[in-house]
Amino acid sequence: MAKDFPTRDENYSQWYNDLVIKADLAENSAVRGCMVIKPYGYAIWERIQAVLDKKFKDTGHSNAYFPIFIPKSFFSKEASHVEGFAKECAVVTHYRLKNSPDGKGIVVDEDAKLEEELIVRPTSETIIWDTYRNWIKSYRDLPVLINQWANVVRWEMRTRLFLRTTEFLWQEGHTAHATREEAVAEAETMLNIYADFAENWMAIPVIKGTKSPAERFAGAIETFAIEALMQDGKALQAGTSHFLGQNFAKAFDVKYLNRENQLDYVWATSWGVSTRLMGALIMSHSDDHGLVLPPKLAPTQVAIVPVFKTQEQLALITAAVLPIKKALEARGVSVKYDDRDTHKPGWKFTEYEFKGVPVRLTIGLRDLEQGTVEVARRDTLEKENLQLTDIENKVIHLLDQIQQNLYERAFAFRENNTFRVDSWEEFKRVLDDKGGFISAHWDGTAETEGKIKEETKATIRVIPLNNPREEGKCIYSGKPSTQRVIFARAY
Amino acid sequence: MAKDFPTRDENYSQWYNDLVIKADLAENSAVRGCMVIKPYGYAIWERIQAVLDKKFKDTGHSNAYFPIFIPKSFFSKEASHVEGFAKECAVVTHYRLKNSPDGKGIVVDEDAKLEEELIVRPTSETIIWDTYRNWIKSYRDLPVLINQWANVVRWEMRTRLFLRTTEFLWQEGHTAHATREEAVAEAETMLNIYADFAENWMAIPVIKGTKSPAERFAGAIETFAIEALMQDGKALQAGTSHFLGQNFAKAFDVKYLNRENQLDYVWATSWGVSTRLMGALIMSHSDDHGLVLPPKLAPTQVAIVPVFKTQEQLALITAAVLPIKKALEARGVSVKYDDRDTHKPGWKFTEYEFKGVPVRLTIGLRDLEQGTVEVARRDTLEKENLQLTDIENKVIHLLDQIQQNLYERAFAFRENNTFRVDSWEEFKRVLDDKGGFISAHWDGTAETEGKIKEETKATIRVIPLNNPREEGKCIYSGKPSTQRVIFARAY
Repeated sequence: MAKDFPTRDENYSQWYNDLVIKADLAENSAVRGCMVIKPYGYAIWERIQAVLDKKFKDTGHSNAYFPIFIPKSFFSKEASHVEGFAKECAVVTHYRLKNSPDGKGIVVDEDAKLEEELIVRPTSETIIWDTYRNWIKSYRDLPVLINQWANVVRWEMRTRLFLRTTEFLWQEGHTAHATREEAVAEAETMLNIYADFAENWMAIPVIKGTKSPAERFAGAIETFAIEALMQDGKALQAGTSHFLGQNFAKAFDVKYLNRENQLDYVWATSWGVSTRLMGALIMSHSDDHGLVLPPKLAPTQVAIVPVFKTQEQLALITAAVLPIKKALEARGVSVKYDDRDTHKPGWKFTEYEFKGVPVRLTIGLRDLEQGTVEVARRDTLEKENLQLTDIENKVIHLLDQIQQNLYERAFAFRENNTFRVDSWEEFKRVLDDKGGFISAHWDGTAETEGKIKEETKATIRVIPLNNPREEGKCIYSGKPSTQRVIFARAY
Repeated sequence: MAKDFPTRDENYSQWYNDLVIKADLAENSAVRGCMVIKPYGYAIWERIQAVLDKKFKDTGHSNAYFPIFIPKSFFSKEASHVEGFAKECAVVTHYRLKNSPDGKGIVVDEDAKLEEELIVRPTSETIIWDTYRNWIKSYRDLPVLINQWANVVRWEMRTRLFLRTTEFLWQEGHTAHATREEAVAEAETMLNIYADFAENWMAIPVIKGTKSPAERFAGAIETFAIEALMQDGKALQAGTSHFLGQNFAKAFDVKYLNRENQLDYVWATSWGVSTRLMGALIMSHSDDHGLVLPPKLAPTQVAIVPVFKTQEQLALITAAVLPIKKALEARGVSVKYDDRDTHKPGWKFTEYEFKGVPVRLTIGLRDLEQGTVEVARRDTLEKENLQLTDIENKVIHLLDQIQQNLYERAFAFRENNTFRVDSWEEFKRVLDDKGGFISAHWDGTAETEGKIKEETKATIRVIPLNNPREEGKCIYSGKPSTQRVIFARAY
């Protein structure tokens, strides 16, 4: 398996694609730009969903479901939204097919043309705010705290599995509030939930901040984002939370009677993460031996491989293994005991290594006699022999250690690849030689930002929250600047 | 609220629509035929999903995700499938919009016409079997046991919330097997899971059986179904499980090397339930006072309403209630303690009754002094005062009783509305006067089935499994028949 598999140094992009496909996470489908998420990849996504869903509900949100189709005219209602989203999209124009007159196959029935075309949702602000108009009459109806797990479609010309696909899965929260302050606080709360999830579950350190106006969500007053650094020195936006002001309330005429009995427009947020997180997960931790998964999100946390020649030997090993498996499962650990006799132990070792299973236990007859087990950890590839006594506590402790180690490794990588840069020459050199996050002064204008992007493909990833004030000169224009921002080339 | 709400006798159809909307389950959206599933309705769907998902996983299935779009040509590959599914559907023809030349709004960009139109999936057999071709090479790759939770679109002319909508949510299982026997067994296993779920969770008795050829899934060799009887005497198909033979394997060229090292086509099943189950749930149990939910699927199982005038009184009541709430929650019961002072107790009673909360506890100062609580059950609307001692066990027992009672009530209704009929005149009379399930002889021909449908709108709902052999004469044609089948008008 690993034979056809390039190292990250050889070709990071190819390494990523091959890994996604060979680790059975996803593959391209017959439909351009749309992926098939395979069971192993989907199992990781289900764990991501479960954790986030609980966090959303614990903070008072409910799930609901809104239509996949949006009338074309809805997009025109919010001026900047239409520019951002109503361009590259899937357009439904007809609602019927018929047998081809020549008897070969089926053709679109031109008599079944829609009066108004429908767009397959690229995001749901418009259809949701059209719905909220009827739900919100008074301050007593607020806040509305709703999330939706759904598929969305953005017609992408260049696609990459998980990172950029025409159809992807995501969650989109859409909340409505009586005051600006409450809406801003909601957007910040959700940003913090995303950051907590990224760091403590995905083991990915992130920078929390706001986007520059040019990088904002189309229709937002402020876009908060978490930004992560991948192993190849490129940035990846891992989640966004938008303060939408009253833009959508005005576009869809959503007013409420406030406590003073006056009509006012409602304040809004939206926030989302997508299957793109799978790409971030893969590119943060995996290595030239395959996938590396943080234990908290691994569908299988522990694989146990027996080494045996006869069925009698297997029976002896199984008798020793089953109580360990049961004890671990009782503690919430997912364990796979792979006692298949159709595959050799060596094949299984490679398989679990490649699939990123955090801990592998190997147990043979001699281990049994000596009361030991070989424990291999995926993150460092280290192996050691441990006494079987109290093995479940040792394994659980090891899982915690691996989770922690992955985070620390990723954190150290980010620290080593974040550069303070003070001149344009240095900016370009660092970007080309090393990549990474570049902390540099910017004059605050869209013009400069645009030129930097044009010349280097680097964008402002984030203006960190609580950024220290610092007098300086813009690396590009030389004009005065009051703070550094984070530049990078990005996925 | 109940004021504008017709009784079931007055207008069953209106009663259903009003109930769905006023109980905050779902509503129509701005997109013709597409519904918005509101948080309360979605919470019930989430419970349905959670239970079924566990049952699927416990029987070895994994979830995955396949594209929402299917190339038009795929539908033509399986001869009968194209007739059934590739007609009334949403057709994507373009992938870009542009600003209108007149500056008003946006229009379809004719330069962005797809070479081949894409169909928004009405069901996924074709795209999935196109994918399986690359996954299945040998008997070692079998069985493939996959399920997908997804949205699907079928362009319906007449829609009703949950029962028939253009877009709906469902799960679709798609499995691949080495032998016919194994595929048939899988289809039966899933039918049994659906029946178990309907009866023991939804409290809806169902008849398990097979469909007549005319009612089969387009592309199936055999369609198994569970059929339920609604309160108005109409039948509702609550789940189907199809044995697809080798039809899709042949259409998409999916062959495997068997144990004898010979190439053979793979055997298939597919099976699904949808948000239609929400309609079945509502129409099986609810009454003129609103929704009635079986405890096992109710998002809130117990509502506790304090009766108080002052905050001091509320504090006393709360001190007594919180330990009860905590004890119930520790036993897995979902409890809502509604201590809002913005709504009167009477308003809350109506609200929880209307929303179908199975058990309501009411507690005031006098109760506190006497150590009692008023317990109201939603199914019978009975109230009684119970001692607070051991109240959590009493409530849990009551929830079980309600679950059981709902099933028994629905079962008795079905028994009382199933009629053995032996003549055509009686058939028509029973159908018009009472509705219900009609058990009658049929000559087994599609011609007779078609004529009965044409003349009465009744269809063969199901040929019960293990149907007793019985000599008789077809009620319509008078020709010889060997068994009775179940006729009804249906949703």
